Amino acid sequence: MQVDEPLLLPRLSRVAVCGGTHGNELSGVYLVQEMMKTQKGGEDREPASVSMLLSNPRAMQHCRRYVDIDLNRCFTHATLNGPISERAPYEIIRARELNAMLGPKGSRAAVDLVCDLHNTTANMGLCFIAYSDCDWICLHIFKYLQKQMPNMPMRFIHFDIPNKESYSLDSIGKHGFAMEIGPQPHGCVKSNIYTAMKEGVQHMLDWAGYFNSGCVFEGGSVEVFTLVKNIDYPREGGTHNITATIHPYLQDRDFCLLHPGDPLFQTFSGETLLYKGKEPLYPFFINECAYYEKGIALSLARKKTVTIPSIWVQTEKEEEQSFTSEEEE
Amino acid sequence: MQVDEPLLLPRLSRVAVCGGTHGNELSGVYLVQEMMKTQKGGEDREPASVSMLLSNPRAMQHCRRYVDIDLNRCFTHATLNGPISERAPYEIIRARELNAMLGPKGSRAAVDLVCDLHNTTANMGLCFIAYSDCDWICLHIFKYLQKQMPNMPMRFIHFDIPNKESYSLDSIGKHGFAMEIGPQPHGCVKSNIYTAMKEGVQHMLDWAGYFNSGCVFEGGSVEVFTLVKNIDYPREGGTHNITATIHPYLQDRDFCLLHPGDPLFQTFSGETLLYKGKEPLYPFFINECAYYEKGIALSLARKKTVTIPSIWVQTEKEEEQSFTSEEEE
Repeated sequence: MQVDEPLLLPRLSRVAVCGGTHGNELSGVYLVQEMMKTQKGGEDREPASVSMLLSNPRAMQHCRRYVDIDLNRCFTHATLNGPISERAPYEIIRARELNAMLGPKGSRAAVDLVCDLHNTTANMGLCFIAYSDCDWICLHIFKYLQKQMPNMPMRFIHFDIPNKESYSLDSIGKHGFAMEIGPQPHGCVKSNIYTAMKEGVQHMLDWAGYFNSGCVFEGGSVEVFTLVKNIDYPREGGTHNITATIHPYLQDRDFCLLHPGDPLFQTFSGETLLYKGKEPLYPFFINECAYYEKGIALSLARKKTVTIPSIWVQTEKEEEQSFTSEEEE
Repeated sequence: MQVDEPLLLPRLSRVAVCGGTHGNELSGVYLVQEMMKTQKGGEDREPASVSMLLSNPRAMQHCRRYVDIDLNRCFTHATLNGPISERAPYEIIRARELNAMLGPKGSRAAVDLVCDLHNTTANMGLCFIAYSDCDWICLHIFKYLQKQMPNMPMRFIHFDIPNKESYSLDSIGKHGFAMEIGPQPHGCVKSNIYTAMKEGVQHMLDWAGYFNSGCVFEGGSVEVFTLVKNIDYPREGGTHNITATIHPYLQDRDFCLLHPGDPLFQTFSGETLLYKGKEPLYPFFINECAYYEKGIALSLARKKTVTIPSIWVQTEKEEEQSFTSEEEE
């Protein structure tokens, strides 16, 4: 094979778009509901078979993130496959249902691509969040969205976690990512955020159609932000008692480089606390309201450039051959 | 009495500052907690006796607006004084406790001033919300804050509701108002909003001290926004199913005059719906997330200018005389 020849990858026959994995992140909830209606009208030339799914209907009903525990932490190998009691939290039962519908995770039967829709109170623009920095499908989709939506701040975040420990819904698919858009308060839907999500999902489905139809996608480079660590709020006594919040200079400055010595927090008595890290890093999820309980005031990432190859869809015959050779291995 | 002479009003001996009436409106929660700490250190020259209070500790614990029902709708005469069962919602029981501590509402024993701290997801800046447009104490405090915080957008909102039907915590005091500051997502605390609230409360307490010490406050005029009506989101089926959200042209434009024919909503399919009212009005509480369940997408107000008199504190003797004459009436 020549260096210039595109890499051949299996077609994306089945795509799942999920909303309401967190029941109070409303852009995804209303977008999936809207797309379900539109699909009823029935385009029959969908290039990939698209499933629209509301992941946590009970949490949606109460307009809460979750009922018992965070659904989007329930998709580890252990939680999906371990023993289960009758009194298991609702979200564990629901995670297994979703795994049966879209997975099983890690198997050949799993859907080809899962796009899970999320909102954040942080000023993050549109982010892809994925467990791999070499999943060429996800990176190509991201590159395509960047080109199609030039006015939308857009970043690719990489959580460097092994597949078995990956915990979120999108990890069920052969490829998968969370589409995270903000700022939007939870329990609220803002038209600009909703519209950005709608456009993002439409472009993602368009891309899948083009890819399946045999378009070659040229390689190039993508900036990837890899999570290095999380920083918690200063606290005293119980976990509820934070003693400071994000400094006004840092608030809303997601993805602006944070240098050692920069203001990090402002205590409730008015004191400034500085960032004491040893290297400059990129902050994100700054003051995400759902993360107070998780002990995360912000996350920090290192930025790198990933070179991605040109890709092209396999023919059915090639696909069959590649599966056979996989099974023989 | 000459026209120019200041109106004599009773001193503000007891002031209550309340936070956490809605358990997920965190600026007030953390400010009251901070002020409780500071008070421990003990200034003993407080010109008015100040009580700091966390109104709904159970809701705070769950970081939710309320546990059973909205506490800040429980302070009507009927709810405070009607029969009560053992299985009454937590917030009704708590409202009665608060009424015993700060009231009873409408009685001579009630605290002189209640300032109840709230946050909104709407872009409202700092608002006073009160039931009267001729409570000179509240209007003078407002005017003082406007002067002290010239960079803070500040408005006085008037809910034209008779005293017996007034439903919020601040209605317990002889004078009272909600201090509502946004935008801040619920369950989140932003340093700029927290700091504005801290400054607002400090200026309010300073004002009470100056007033009690015999300063004359010159009259003048205050712009007052009187609530005319609320507008709900377009909905279909159940109450959960809104079919549109605030139009991007209107989002965050609280207190910018809305004219008949202006864009009001954008449906989830992308259609623009226009404001069909007959007169231009001032919108506020635009897209307040806690009001989805109350059927309020935005509120509309008419603006007027209220002329307020110069005021001066009564001497203790004058106060006694005025009480005696009230009782004789």
